Amino acid sequence: MATTEQISSTTLAPLNPPRRLLFGPGPTMVDPRVYEALSKPLVGHLDPYFIQVLEDVQQLLKGVFGIKEGFTIAISGTGSAGMEAAVANLIEPGMKFAIFANGYFCDRITEMGKRHGANVVRFEKPWGEIFSDAEATDFIRRERPNVVAYVNAETSTGALQNGKAICAAAHDAGALVIADVVTSLGAMPIRFDETGIDIAYSCTQKGLSCPPGLAPIAVSRRAMDYLNARKTPCRSWYLDLKLLYDYHTVSHRYHHTAPISMFYALREALVVIMEEGIENRWQRHLHCHKEFLDGVQELGLEMHVPKEENRIWNLNTVKVPEGVDSGRVTKRLLEERGIEILGGFGPLAGKVFRIGIMGPLATGRNVTLLLTEFENILRAEGYKGGKR
Amino acid sequence: MATTEQISSTTLAPLNPPRRLLFGPGPTMVDPRVYEALSKPLVGHLDPYFIQVLEDVQQLLKGVFGIKEGFTIAISGTGSAGMEAAVANLIEPGMKFAIFANGYFCDRITEMGKRHGANVVRFEKPWGEIFSDAEATDFIRRERPNVVAYVNAETSTGALQNGKAICAAAHDAGALVIADVVTSLGAMPIRFDETGIDIAYSCTQKGLSCPPGLAPIAVSRRAMDYLNARKTPCRSWYLDLKLLYDYHTVSHRYHHTAPISMFYALREALVVIMEEGIENRWQRHLHCHKEFLDGVQELGLEMHVPKEENRIWNLNTVKVPEGVDSGRVTKRLLEERGIEILGGFGPLAGKVFRIGIMGPLATGRNVTLLLTEFENILRAEGYKGGKR
Repeated sequence: MATTEQISSTTLAPLNPPRRLLFGPGPTMVDPRVYEALSKPLVGHLDPYFIQVLEDVQQLLKGVFGIKEGFTIAISGTGSAGMEAAVANLIEPGMKFAIFANGYFCDRITEMGKRHGANVVRFEKPWGEIFSDAEATDFIRRERPNVVAYVNAETSTGALQNGKAICAAAHDAGALVIADVVTSLGAMPIRFDETGIDIAYSCTQKGLSCPPGLAPIAVSRRAMDYLNARKTPCRSWYLDLKLLYDYHTVSHRYHHTAPISMFYALREALVVIMEEGIENRWQRHLHCHKEFLDGVQELGLEMHVPKEENRIWNLNTVKVPEGVDSGRVTKRLLEERGIEILGGFGPLAGKVFRIGIMGPLATGRNVTLLLTEFENILRAEGYKGGKR
Repeated sequence: MATTEQISSTTLAPLNPPRRLLFGPGPTMVDPRVYEALSKPLVGHLDPYFIQVLEDVQQLLKGVFGIKEGFTIAISGTGSAGMEAAVANLIEPGMKFAIFANGYFCDRITEMGKRHGANVVRFEKPWGEIFSDAEATDFIRRERPNVVAYVNAETSTGALQNGKAICAAAHDAGALVIADVVTSLGAMPIRFDETGIDIAYSCTQKGLSCPPGLAPIAVSRRAMDYLNARKTPCRSWYLDLKLLYDYHTVSHRYHHTAPISMFYALREALVVIMEEGIENRWQRHLHCHKEFLDGVQELGLEMHVPKEENRIWNLNTVKVPEGVDSGRVTKRLLEERGIEILGGFGPLAGKVFRIGIMGPLATGRNVTLLLTEFENILRAEGYKGGKR
């Protein structure tokens, strides 16, 4: 039979991934305890032990997001599933959806908004710029949308967008607000309640230092009221937050079979964060960010985002110096040093390096190591600037 | 700050899941090698090593599905995400969607079909019955749908539906066919090409003996042609098979960050299957199924699905004998013996036990162990039948 032939003719080497230092935008390094949790024996998805794990994760996520009312769960998909859950649940066909567009992930939200039936309006800026409070307020007052979305930490550009003025103006206009905190959660303050966000989604593989596979999401009381009152069902059954809320927190009635091992891992990753203290963790990331900026300056390099207050702490975008081929640098760092950093894409292709310093890698020693190896390869590729 | 207080006041026990013998419908037991793979160090999702893992998984899945042309990938969500991917990609708003409805998962396909804009027509039968070739053909000839769906192995009922006549009639009518093989893949033959399926989706946590978290999917050349020609975009961006196909097999351009660890695990689970030989594996499941049936007969119990040829090999539905409370039996087996089996739900609530014998548990010794403990608890709950 063809079936058997195909299989037995496949000769595969044993699984043996190379050791990488993951200084890219994600996935990032994972604590050994999290790997250990990942490989703990499975129980059933309706087993009382697993229900407790689900509840622990919800409780731990509340602290990381900074949300008291509403709810937090982890969706059984990656960060992009979290994004689609936010859009699919808040958008009903024909709604006006206002998007602050200054990078790749805003474009993706736009695409999802259209697929879920929204009438999308965009406030566009070049990749890496941010929106002032006055600009944001004016846009929302003028457009009077039903739903607003912004990206708090744009992984494609390194820019950090403050959401406070956006949320205030949106609520004045009767709109709900989606915030993308994929890169910031766990590494920088989100302050969900204080900012006034209605749905924030993230991933497990960046600031939370867990393998990719789940999408933590926080939903305000206001958004819950909206969900309970919406006229048409969410176009996605898998990502329907009303059904997921019921499974995760109320009835625990079967919706889908949750990825048990990933929930074990996320629980452990969140416990590691809890033990360090979330504010200590934020400070550690800020501190390493500053050390990295000092090194960048010494090297004579420039950051893509000009102002310090507009930069993501745990994901740095460094301009590629003239005459250097960024693809060669990232390739050589990976192949010769086992270090992953990534280049830019879209309008920033060939123009920036994207360097993540987060989780277990956010220590002074690792920043020094990274700067040293980065400089070595840059120099080997002909870079002559800086004074180091 | 509230954030910190919430976290530090949470006191959690270390993660230490109880050891269970997972004889339910899934998740099922996992080979130690698969747990080991799960906890291998992460590499980036665009790392050449990971791209190779993605390609290995595709190749290995081809043999398990029995597909030569078209493509196979694993979707970054659970089996239910696979179901929604199938529906969302084949349905365009207003299309006629014919569903063979004889259990819970057919109802779920119906719900998804409606959310994705289909005009759904259903051929309904009581839970556990199957559709004859003539009935299936008549229904499709009469309805002339655009898309047809059936559940090959209905986890809610234990019934096995042959797809050959359905696929032949559908293709005669110019329709594409979705087959749910969530429970059967890896434990029973699917024969994708031979049967004439256009999209089949599954999960990792049943016949493939891997933790839950991915949804293997196979797509025929015919379905690919349709996807390339469809007029409106798929309503789901996350589950858009054209984008996923490009990421997994063509350009490897970023779509989402794949759950690296889960792909490690699935690769290893498929290698374990390859080493055993897929046909040996099917035979092992059939053999254990027969041993279990002998035991059930000795115990004086009855199967919910009357005819042997209509039963799923790896998921048995046993009628709850009169006077026995199925909820007490499943609870006591879990709490006193660490054995998970599940009861029925929907119209079968309280009426059947659902007992999975698959993967590492599908051995003669384990069948005997299960039957012994099952009998012990049944007797303790007042059951008097049988001659064992």
